Amino acid sequence: MSDRVGDFTAFRQRMNERILSHDNQVVKRFFALDTQTYKAGALDVKTKEMLGLVASLVLRCDDCVSYHVAQCLEAGVSEDEFFEVFSVGLVVGGSIVIPHLRRGVDFLDQMTAGRAPASDAAG
Amino acid sequence: MSDRVGDFTAFRQRMNERILSHDNQVVKRFFALDTQTYKAGALDVKTKEMLGLVASLVLRCDDCVSYHVAQCLEAGVSEDEFFEVFSVGLVVGGSIVIPHLRRGVDFLDQMTAGRAPASDAAG
Amino acid sequence: MSDRVGDFTAFRQRMNERILSHDNQVVKRFFALDTQTYKAGALDVKTKEMLGLVASLVLRCDDCVSYHVAQCLEAGVSEDEFFEVFSVGLVVGGSIVIPHLRRGVDFLDQMTAGRAPASDAAG
Amino acid sequence: MSDRVGDFTAFRQRMNERILSHDNQVVKRFFALDTQTYKAGALDVKTKEMLGLVASLVLRCDDCVSYHVAQCLEAGVSEDEFFEVFSVGLVVGGSIVIPHLRRGVDFLDQMTAGRAPASDAAG
Amino acid sequence: MSDRVGDFTAFRQRMNERILSHDNQVVKRFFALDTQTYKAGALDVKTKEMLGLVASLVLRCDDCVSYHVAQCLEAGVSEDEFFEVFSVGLVVGGSIVIPHLRRGVDFLDQMTAGRAPASDAAG
Amino acid sequence: MSDRVGDFTAFRQRMNERILSHDNQVVKRFFALDTQTYKAGALDVKTKEMLGLVASLVLRCDDCVSYHVAQCLEAGVSEDEFFEVFSVGLVVGGSIVIPHLRRGVDFLDQMTAGRAPASDAAG
Repeated sequence: MSDRVGDFTAFRQRMNERILSHDNQVVKRFFALDTQTYKAGALDVKTKEMLGLVASLVLRCDDCVSYHVAQCLEAGVSEDEFFEVFSVGLVVGGSIVIPHLRRGVDFLDQMTAGRAPASDAAG
Repeated sequence: MSDRVGDFTAFRQRMNERILSHDNQVVKRFFALDTQTYKAGALDVKTKEMLGLVASLVLRCDDCVSYHVAQCLEAGVSEDEFFEVFSVGLVVGGSIVIPHLRRGVDFLDQMTAGRAPASDAAG
Repeated sequence: MSDRVGDFTAFRQRMNERILSHDNQVVKRFFALDTQTYKAGALDVKTKEMLGLVASLVLRCDDCVSYHVAQCLEAGVSEDEFFEVFSVGLVVGGSIVIPHLRRGVDFLDQMTAGRAPASDAAG
Repeated sequence: MSDRVGDFTAFRQRMNERILSHDNQVVKRFFALDTQTYKAGALDVKTKEMLGLVASLVLRCDDCVSYHVAQCLEAGVSEDEFFEVFSVGLVVGGSIVIPHLRRGVDFLDQMTAGRAPASDAAG
Repeated sequence: MSDRVGDFTAFRQRMNERILSHDNQVVKRFFALDTQTYKAGALDVKTKEMLGLVASLVLRCDDCVSYHVAQCLEAGVSEDEFFEVFSVGLVVGGSIVIPHLRRGVDFLDQMTAGRAPASDAAG
Repeated sequence: MSDRVGDFTAFRQRMNERILSHDNQVVKRFFALDTQTYKAGALDVKTKEMLGLVASLVLRCDDCVSYHVAQCLEAGVSEDEFFEVFSVGLVVGGSIVIPHLRRGVDFLDQMTAGRAPASDAAG
């Protein structure tokens, strides 16, 4: 089984740097705006990240699901809460969402395995 | 200006009854499951309705946006919170979401106008 | 209640003629290919029209749903069969499909009402 | 036949003002970025507007198609060029695009009819 | 060339068990409903599986295409029939479907190769 | 790092031959029409390929993005122009496009590395 967490993070970081190294103001501002979107405001970070996760799930973007799963974990989303977010995504988006749910849960499991107490080599 | 809230509600109710009057178990169970999805659990109703709203927005379904706007209002989502949900939908889904955002905000305004003073039973 | 069947048919026919009056070979060939697609072959017309209907439903295109509902009726799809096609579309595509299902069933009802007794020339 | 150009423009303007009157920085910045995107740069305005049009067409957003049809007209896109943009959208996006193409061509015709003689202030 | 059939089947089964081991009623009921959808009713299993296949193709979900290709084979869909289902998906969904068609046909070929003469237990 | 350019090209060519070896007229005509779409007409090849690229990007099809990146390079699209096409795709399609943008830029970099003057070991 491949190191999905590590591979994803490394490719994401390398390509973000590459893209932002090109002097296109619209692209740069979009990336900045994307970061700003999930800052705490009237809604807290945890809620916003769950919104990002369900949006990614119904739009069926594996990398976006992976990213928001990681951010949700960071924000303290519990496994029961994750599955309720997944249930909304599944019912709104239909069975076509299932393969992305499988990969999202697999990513979640790899991340939590990597964090676990006496474990090492997370991702 | 047409009565979007009333028209939407009447058509929705009439057609749901028509659809559920046909004896198809999968369709009936799907409708029941859809209702069950937004019940309080590990997440409260307000959070789940905001998840439903952002999912509807990025999938660009006007009627689904209208429905979840109404449910979110019922669950106590404030205008600032609505706009933060909209901001996530807009950034995730892109400018293609804007026309649906316009109609969603218009629906929200019609609902809150209908509720306004000491009124009841708007939509 | 508006005459959805008549409005749809008239607009569809007028605009198809307008579009095909412009001398763009790719557009013309695409329209011809679209017609050819639903001709009987290894699969009969009824099956192909049901395939077109479910594809239109999960892609959530009201006009395409209307068109294939009409073609399916013509090909002898029964109400039970319609609802099984709808059930597949609903489960694959999720609750986001429901508003399109409502309008599709409404269109079906208007078509069958228009045909009903000794009537002619409904849609 | 309704005044699609006038209705679209009035609703669009009224709701944009309403949305931007709410103090949400992400939403405001997104709207500003959207405007900036189509400014001349390495590509001219005409090319960028055609890119916006084809993207709107394959994503099947009628209002976005209307908007970019108007902007393309302004930028000097000819009818032959419009149909080549449409042909790319049709082949990439499939027959599901056709109803949106019908409405896009209808909008184009209403705009060019409105401009025609020595008229002013069409859309 | 990797063993797409084996990899897909193993991952699918492992993750379905993992997901269903979590006690979320909505998710469990959705999975059960998904299975129920393709049971014989007014339409036979073969027709329903072809409906599932074309829906998966136009929604461009490789894993869903793989799954329904396997189910269609099981239900007796011939190669000519497969290509007619593909042709509907291609024309409705456009050239954007082509990469998924390539992977779907590749999966079909791997499944039929695996079944071929005196072979056992392919997918 | 895998040879994305070589792998993509080889699989694409092998499967196109396989698909076109089956005698389905609709599929064959669709493939022919797809090729015809990007021929010079009222718009030149470079503009049409950029239209194909932005359409592929907002529909989030990696293989289609790769294909049109290669065609755009062939047609003389500069890096600044590529990023302006990307900026339109990003703003229209939203952050959900970003993972496809990363892979598209990576593919572009592998292609240009492969072309570079005295360089070897392309992609």
